[in-house]
Amino acid sequence: MSYFKHHVFFCCNQRDGGQDCCNAMGASTAFAWTKERIASLGRSGAGAIRVSKAGCLGRCDIGPTLVVYPEAVWYTYVDQEDLEEIIQEHLIGGRPVERLRRE
Amino acid sequence: MSYFKHHVFFCCNQRDGGQDCCNAMGASTAFAWTKERIASLGRSGAGAIRVSKAGCLGRCDIGPTLVVYPEAVWYTYVDQEDLEEIIQEHLIGGRPVERLRRE
Repeated sequence: MSYFKHHVFFCCNQRDGGQDCCNAMGASTAFAWTKERIASLGRSGAGAIRVSKAGCLGRCDIGPTLVVYPEAVWYTYVDQEDLEEIIQEHLIGGRPVERLRRE
Repeated sequence: MSYFKHHVFFCCNQRDGGQDCCNAMGASTAFAWTKERIASLGRSGAGAIRVSKAGCLGRCDIGPTLVVYPEAVWYTYVDQEDLEEIIQEHLIGGRPVERLRRE
């Protein structure tokens, strides 16, 4: 069984030596914002959607990355507007956001 | 699409104040051991199975926890024997290990 309708993992990996990594591109801030936003949605949010930090997801090449399971949809995001769209459209509405999706 | 046949997340959360948490029960060691073990399996391992650290998965009550996506199977484990069984039976064999599974 799944405990959550959606389980979102934010890559918050920090690489040494100034290499590109999700954390250097604001991942921890994006994670914290999303977690709080989901909590504010009450039962439709916190009860059904879990937001977790993750170590390196291995996609440093595509920018700040998150993955939504169990549907295994990968995204990159730039700002809170992108995150809000993922929350409203995908996590609540059930429709993946194609413009942010990465293959 | 999914990049991996299985994506395994180890809760490596460390709670303050001596409370029970996965990390205090050896999660980081278990994560590192499993990651290396998967890598040693070559193509059937590292190419198909991703092992990531995760922040708190919210199951502090059931002991050191991991979850396997996309199938959303949750486990607790005690030692490397348990982890090896999850690797061989579930991640390679495709058969979840019922004795370690948690609802």
